[in-house]
Amino acid sequence: MSEILLSQLAHVELLSPKPEETVAWMKKVFGLEETTRDGQSVYLRGWAEWLHSSLIVTEAPESGVGRIGWRTYGPNDPETIAQRLGDTEEHVGWVDDWEGHGRTYQYKSAFGRHLHEVFWDVDLYEAPADKKDSALLMRPQKISDQGAAVRYLDHVTMPSANMKGDIEFYKKLGARHTAATEVEPGFSVFSTLTCNGIRSTHDIALVPDFSGMTNRAHHIAFRVDQRLDVERAAEICLANDTPIELGPGVHGIDEITYLYVREPGGFRMEINSGGWVNTMPDWETKNYQAAGGNPGQSVYRNVTLPESFYEAWPLPPKEAAEKERDAVMHDSVADFYQQKPAGV
Amino acid sequence: MSEILLSQLAHVELLSPKPEETVAWMKKVFGLEETTRDGQSVYLRGWAEWLHSSLIVTEAPESGVGRIGWRTYGPNDPETIAQRLGDTEEHVGWVDDWEGHGRTYQYKSAFGRHLHEVFWDVDLYEAPADKKDSALLMRPQKISDQGAAVRYLDHVTMPSANMKGDIEFYKKLGARHTAATEVEPGFSVFSTLTCNGIRSTHDIALVPDFSGMTNRAHHIAFRVDQRLDVERAAEICLANDTPIELGPGVHGIDEITYLYVREPGGFRMEINSGGWVNTMPDWETKNYQAAGGNPGQSVYRNVTLPESFYEAWPLPPKEAAEKERDAVMHDSVADFYQQKPAGV
Amino acid sequence: MSEILLSQLAHVELLSPKPEETVAWMKKVFGLEETTRDGQSVYLRGWAEWLHSSLIVTEAPESGVGRIGWRTYGPNDPETIAQRLGDTEEHVGWVDDWEGHGRTYQYKSAFGRHLHEVFWDVDLYEAPADKKDSALLMRPQKISDQGAAVRYLDHVTMPSANMKGDIEFYKKLGARHTAATEVEPGFSVFSTLTCNGIRSTHDIALVPDFSGMTNRAHHIAFRVDQRLDVERAAEICLANDTPIELGPGVHGIDEITYLYVREPGGFRMEINSGGWVNTMPDWETKNYQAAGGNPGQSVYRNVTLPESFYEAWPLPPKEAAEKERDAVMHDSVADFYQQKPAGV
Amino acid sequence: MSEILLSQLAHVELLSPKPEETVAWMKKVFGLEETTRDGQSVYLRGWAEWLHSSLIVTEAPESGVGRIGWRTYGPNDPETIAQRLGDTEEHVGWVDDWEGHGRTYQYKSAFGRHLHEVFWDVDLYEAPADKKDSALLMRPQKISDQGAAVRYLDHVTMPSANMKGDIEFYKKLGARHTAATEVEPGFSVFSTLTCNGIRSTHDIALVPDFSGMTNRAHHIAFRVDQRLDVERAAEICLANDTPIELGPGVHGIDEITYLYVREPGGFRMEINSGGWVNTMPDWETKNYQAAGGNPGQSVYRNVTLPESFYEAWPLPPKEAAEKERDAVMHDSVADFYQQKPAGV
Repeated sequence: MSEILLSQLAHVELLSPKPEETVAWMKKVFGLEETTRDGQSVYLRGWAEWLHSSLIVTEAPESGVGRIGWRTYGPNDPETIAQRLGDTEEHVGWVDDWEGHGRTYQYKSAFGRHLHEVFWDVDLYEAPADKKDSALLMRPQKISDQGAAVRYLDHVTMPSANMKGDIEFYKKLGARHTAATEVEPGFSVFSTLTCNGIRSTHDIALVPDFSGMTNRAHHIAFRVDQRLDVERAAEICLANDTPIELGPGVHGIDEITYLYVREPGGFRMEINSGGWVNTMPDWETKNYQAAGGNPGQSVYRNVTLPESFYEAWPLPPKEAAEKERDAVMHDSVADFYQQKPAGV
Repeated sequence: MSEILLSQLAHVELLSPKPEETVAWMKKVFGLEETTRDGQSVYLRGWAEWLHSSLIVTEAPESGVGRIGWRTYGPNDPETIAQRLGDTEEHVGWVDDWEGHGRTYQYKSAFGRHLHEVFWDVDLYEAPADKKDSALLMRPQKISDQGAAVRYLDHVTMPSANMKGDIEFYKKLGARHTAATEVEPGFSVFSTLTCNGIRSTHDIALVPDFSGMTNRAHHIAFRVDQRLDVERAAEICLANDTPIELGPGVHGIDEITYLYVREPGGFRMEINSGGWVNTMPDWETKNYQAAGGNPGQSVYRNVTLPESFYEAWPLPPKEAAEKERDAVMHDSVADFYQQKPAGV
Repeated sequence: MSEILLSQLAHVELLSPKPEETVAWMKKVFGLEETTRDGQSVYLRGWAEWLHSSLIVTEAPESGVGRIGWRTYGPNDPETIAQRLGDTEEHVGWVDDWEGHGRTYQYKSAFGRHLHEVFWDVDLYEAPADKKDSALLMRPQKISDQGAAVRYLDHVTMPSANMKGDIEFYKKLGARHTAATEVEPGFSVFSTLTCNGIRSTHDIALVPDFSGMTNRAHHIAFRVDQRLDVERAAEICLANDTPIELGPGVHGIDEITYLYVREPGGFRMEINSGGWVNTMPDWETKNYQAAGGNPGQSVYRNVTLPESFYEAWPLPPKEAAEKERDAVMHDSVADFYQQKPAGV
Repeated sequence: MSEILLSQLAHVELLSPKPEETVAWMKKVFGLEETTRDGQSVYLRGWAEWLHSSLIVTEAPESGVGRIGWRTYGPNDPETIAQRLGDTEEHVGWVDDWEGHGRTYQYKSAFGRHLHEVFWDVDLYEAPADKKDSALLMRPQKISDQGAAVRYLDHVTMPSANMKGDIEFYKKLGARHTAATEVEPGFSVFSTLTCNGIRSTHDIALVPDFSGMTNRAHHIAFRVDQRLDVERAAEICLANDTPIELGPGVHGIDEITYLYVREPGGFRMEINSGGWVNTMPDWETKNYQAAGGNPGQSVYRNVTLPESFYEAWPLPPKEAAEKERDAVMHDSVADFYQQKPAGV
């Protein structure tokens, strides 16, 4: 079946208990540009993005994500998806009054219960005269020299109470399951998926959720052009008193050069570059074995993850947090995701 | 219409009057790996390619290209394309005995008369034990340290006697026309097209043909990961007594970092990296105006092309060569593609 | 003789007919930081410089350079230099009231008649609390994220009416003549010199002067860390409507990655990175032959210089300008510095 | 005092229990070139080195270093050094029959008891016709495309039983003490020194020795041009089944981008690039406080050193090894060099 339903991850809504600080940091350190404000939300985008906005910061008592938006590949695809989900538990409904895009169909993922929305009609960003790049027409505006000057939204990583189930759910909507770290055959504890492999190795990643909670998130990633831009981003973060949580380094699972930091609301943000391009529609999922000495964690294979890296938001009760912390990748392969949540 | 018919440019056949020298150079300088030999042809691939072969070197009296192969997006797409072309002049027919892929439908482009072929079934490369990368499973083999160590085939650039017509032809098979340099509105003299924007900014580029000949080619491009890898490739070429024709530099039209050299048979080969990713299915063609000060030639906007850069193979009669040379981008915008072939 | 008299090029005074625009551009585009203002002069420095200032912008009717300052290797070296010059024509005298450094001996170069000054005592830059980098102590302040964020002053390139004579003059004060492009043996038309090879391939470069004028300058260069930083600088310049005159590219004569642009006063500024390190005190001058096919112009060997690149300031009378333009490196080696000024 | 006695670290002799494997690996993975063989020693050099050899591999029962060779800044400096040491315990004597350089004065460092040798006359490498770079005259030969293609020797890191004493010893011979990590004021447990700051941030580094043994070594470093070259070197090592011990990363103490691996004899080799240039003759030692939250370990500040990183050769008795392991930098600053050897 030569099917593509989604053309790109279009936006993620970030919930922040400190929205003003979060927005200011996104603009100063990541270099995002503000498109508009609407009620409790501020709409931001990377300088290289043609769409209206890619990060929507909304005030909330706790960190986390809200709507996860996808542009479809064609005008009829939102309807196709609505029909395919029918009146399942995943179905949410149609809305048509959002900033930045037209009529939108909303649904929830099967086990992470994340709120997704799909649409075809979009508002394109229109640069003001002083920002227009009249020489490089494929750019929606002149290159930014602000902070890390990230180019565009790359992916969102989310805990799931049943990774096997959610992977099947996303595949039903056209996703390609590109790679996994398995604790045993068929049971992934880290998985990457892409709607079509165009912009990056994955637009969704899944990790286990032991909390019984729903709609949690681990991080949101933005992209820069070159690996050295990630290293420059690390310098920019430090110069702005933003400590580095992990990186720069290169993930072995997909060859992405990564950097993880925390925005002022406490949520984890990634800047990345490069990575393995998945051209093949029938790409066979690459299964790294957590217990077999091949977790695919790092190209350089000697990197220890900090304990803090297990945290996902909203933070779960202490016991679940400990389980998730224990599950997080440590030095030795034997420690790699020892526990698995029910139904991974 | 959310249609994708082709998943990637799979291979290009390079005709060479000095096939042994060409193959030896491709292996030593570009770092291509030999898969197999069959009759007059040698099958090569970049170390990062999962398919059987991407460059097929075949002996011929003159430089040029032969078959241009595409993998479809799904198993039924070759048949879909065959039906769409029906019994037009473009129709060639079905063949099923090639190395590296299964049953194949062949057709010719409308005005360049280049021989294309499409197929779904492919033979994957199987690395021998000592080349297998057991840690990075998305790689078909260990990274190469030979020469420029190019990763994979990127695009092929071809003269066309009627660019407007050929652009329409390729669009009929699902191509997206990403950018053009126009001499007047609607008349492109340089165009980039992509079957889906996955691996690069374009998999086909077109330039004008004044020769009355058919099936000519300007260059074939392979890809490396980082912009600095292009600069290293330039050093590798020079150290192997391969002069540089153009670059390293950055094309303004799509932000690709390029390097052009000649292989021993005299044909032009490109090594590139980066470039603008076209995620949008409804991406609007960006039209640079040759006469209006915005030819989109170079990000750095101060690069003069050498005279030799107009050559395409097989070489045309003197008069046509001069027209094509005059058409090639010179310093001043006023000189940029002054003459246009009938029907551009 | 194991002698080193000068430890580094410390500052260059840039004369500008538009000092306010020049200073604003240096801060916004190059990312220089202002230390202080004093009368008609503004004192600037790169974020990585420990000394008080490295570029002093002073109002003047025409572009050009004023004082060229050197820090000595030890406290007695200014006196040593003064004694060595004695009461020659080069001797100017002692001054001790400058911003940024202590008692200073001034002299003029033999044939370019450029005003140099040498001193040992310097004022170090003291970062304010919010700019101090408390983690990386070798940095005088946090890394800058402003514009191209140049690190430090690299070199100054100056026309000389008698290059052979000036090379001997600078060697008398400890300079190493690292490379030359010769029109005939012993007659250089482009020369690089270094006081000790520490920070770059050269801190002085000389080109021919046909004007009969004195104290002219071709460009001042600042340094960034990586070759990709030069490419980013090119993007920053373009985004700030500063056209590129030449580059990014790599000079063959010393492997420096370069970029040349014009500041608002019209003077040429360079940003560079990398280059061949001259460790050897007895380094033998490498003599490229202008007429022999080996001008050492470009690593990539296919770069044409724009006509504007011959200009040096103050601009000379028309006839001399034409001679200097003809002398400037063109495409073919045969055109390379055909005319030589008396005594090159 | 404007004194420079040494112009560069010229060579290090590496002792190997598996000399053939060591030499083969140095050529294939590091890309070193063999100059000559003499008795039990093989003389190697990086492609960018003008001197005869920079790494001399000599068979020995245990890993370690032998002679550490320095070229002086002028012809009389070996005699100056000999006179300065007089008949102290450090004096060893004159030898004049080595490969690659002329008459040589040998001495031992005060507390590490490492064998140094200084000389002025050197044999320059003469490239054979097919390796000569006729276009880039500052290169002793064409660029190498073999393995990591390291350019030149950078530094050697050695344990010392009395770091304070050895620092004073090296300073007496003209070294600049650029940076230190201190456990208390004046007591360094990691120190970098440079003879003149020309090629890198340091040519010697010192770490504590608890063994009572002498002449031990921690690693030898070679240099590549760009930070991305270090990342490519990591890939080259992995593709050659050489595991990475640490890196790529950036040392905070001097901004060097590093990669540490083990050669087949078991000794630690580094490949690095970049780093802070020390131009100032009166550079004030930067003292990072091990216990105060500012150890200067990593620019990215979140890197955990592997336990193996404490090893230095010859390996000491178990108890000393444990002390040294405990002394090695761990995650928390509080653990950083808790124990100090007598007299650090």
